[in-house]
Amino acid sequence: MKKEYQQEIKNALAAAEKIDGINHVYFVACGGSMAFMQPAEYIFNRECDIPATILPAREFTTRNPHDLCNHSLVVSCSHSGSTPETNEAVNFAKSKGALTVGITYTAGSDLEKNSDFTLHYSWGKGTDASDLNNGVLYGFIFSLLKSITGDNKFEKGLKALDSLETMADRVRKQFGETAKKWTSELKREKLIYAVGSGINTGETYSFSACWLQEMQWIHSGYINSAEYFHGPFEVTDFDVPFIICKGLGVTRKMDQRVIDFAKKHSQKVYVIDDADFDMHEVDDDFKEYYSQILSGVAFRQLAEGFAYERGHSLDVRRYMGHLDY
Amino acid sequence: MKKEYQQEIKNALAAAEKIDGINHVYFVACGGSMAFMQPAEYIFNRECDIPATILPAREFTTRNPHDLCNHSLVVSCSHSGSTPETNEAVNFAKSKGALTVGITYTAGSDLEKNSDFTLHYSWGKGTDASDLNNGVLYGFIFSLLKSITGDNKFEKGLKALDSLETMADRVRKQFGETAKKWTSELKREKLIYAVGSGINTGETYSFSACWLQEMQWIHSGYINSAEYFHGPFEVTDFDVPFIICKGLGVTRKMDQRVIDFAKKHSQKVYVIDDADFDMHEVDDDFKEYYSQILSGVAFRQLAEGFAYERGHSLDVRRYMGHLDY
Repeated sequence: MKKEYQQEIKNALAAAEKIDGINHVYFVACGGSMAFMQPAEYIFNRECDIPATILPAREFTTRNPHDLCNHSLVVSCSHSGSTPETNEAVNFAKSKGALTVGITYTAGSDLEKNSDFTLHYSWGKGTDASDLNNGVLYGFIFSLLKSITGDNKFEKGLKALDSLETMADRVRKQFGETAKKWTSELKREKLIYAVGSGINTGETYSFSACWLQEMQWIHSGYINSAEYFHGPFEVTDFDVPFIICKGLGVTRKMDQRVIDFAKKHSQKVYVIDDADFDMHEVDDDFKEYYSQILSGVAFRQLAEGFAYERGHSLDVRRYMGHLDY
Repeated sequence: MKKEYQQEIKNALAAAEKIDGINHVYFVACGGSMAFMQPAEYIFNRECDIPATILPAREFTTRNPHDLCNHSLVVSCSHSGSTPETNEAVNFAKSKGALTVGITYTAGSDLEKNSDFTLHYSWGKGTDASDLNNGVLYGFIFSLLKSITGDNKFEKGLKALDSLETMADRVRKQFGETAKKWTSELKREKLIYAVGSGINTGETYSFSACWLQEMQWIHSGYINSAEYFHGPFEVTDFDVPFIICKGLGVTRKMDQRVIDFAKKHSQKVYVIDDADFDMHEVDDDFKEYYSQILSGVAFRQLAEGFAYERGHSLDVRRYMGHLDY
């Protein structure tokens, strides 16, 4: 990770450490910028006693959580830094006395101006994965968790950032042909469900809402693996496509149960299995947490495959950037 | 509300009051039984400093929240009381020392056996709304919030239960023809999106996952109003149907923004507006909280309308109850 990003993390961490007892960590943003932070909420719930909640920015602002105060830490993200709802949420949090940390690609953006501290990240092909939004977020939360819990194991989580690009690149090479094959087979589908759970919830939701709905105009819905058998599974039929993310670790069995059933009743079940991805550089304690970043690499390759097969660039929008709303 | 239900609430409340500082309230269940508790999580977030989180049962168990302990209160629900994941979650919570309160229709069920305290509810046509799952849940959480905060305003929330049946019945009569018309127009649709937010999140999710996907085999996805413009809205087109729940209170403007845009670009936008429902019996402080129960009445009428128009009974399942999975 770039030295200046490391320094920004240190600055934000020092401010968080000055809070006299963090009462709640909120992660608030919109769309893909919210979804990519879901693993941070998840890891917090698993690793420490401080409650952590993720909310769409305007759900956060309108909800006006009763416990939001000068003991709260509010982490937000906007790639452009100009998302109105996210900036509104940050200003709202500040008005309640919370410490605000904004994650953004865009230097000098509104989010940077409004946030107490900013974590910048890099973007685009050729960027080292540790400098992307995921890398910077993990750098911050593992540092924060180390500080909160005093547990040195989080050093291992931070260390893994050094290997993130190697792992991501390996997945790109490994999954490329698979992505081409799947998207060739699925390119005429009008609707594709995305299923995942646990640490993969955010990436799977993003695949549904951002890659499929937003960037390919393919109908989709996100289904949590824990919910599949409690309603949604009745739509399963021989011709209904599901892309299912099978996690490592604690949710693996639950994801597998969905796969077993869906494969029996649909001929169009496609499984991204995180166990297929070599993560030997990462300590066992952190493999599950890092696996979702690799799921995201695979999801992105599927999106690129769809774009190619359907002649529908990932940059095309019919509304965003063209209309006021 | 029936005297015995009131007594069960008192018993559970007394046990919750004996916890020496509740550190977290978890609401855990599956499908519709989870969704109907979402407003309880929402109201807790709005009204008190004790963190509250809602999770699908197996997401809860696999996540194994770090702060789950003998200071925690875990509220679950299963209509049959036999849902394996929910019972598993209750037993898991008990193994961590948490106080468990199970909400169920079924006396003598596993959920009753496994939970420290049980809140029973009634079901079926002719049941007074205050004796349904919603009524019992609100009876419990408003009593609990009164106890936690010491604020007598929650008496007004409890008082409103007496008028719930009157209000629900009014909506049934008022919305009946509308439901018939909408479902006649929409009956040949293969996919219908459901949009809502805030206090209506659970009911809107239920409409998508339980009424449409499970009971009508109509493809669907739930979209939060705060998320619509951050991905999903790009699928909007002249022939894409949306059923949107427009809330009272804090999320109303956000829901309206979705409606304004969707109506411009789709000819199939249907809006359930909670402001259309007469709630004069309820104190202003509690109208928003109660409105979601009335949204649920309207959603149910839509489900019944679809069942009639499509000759597809709400009782038909192809998998549940027929296969092991």
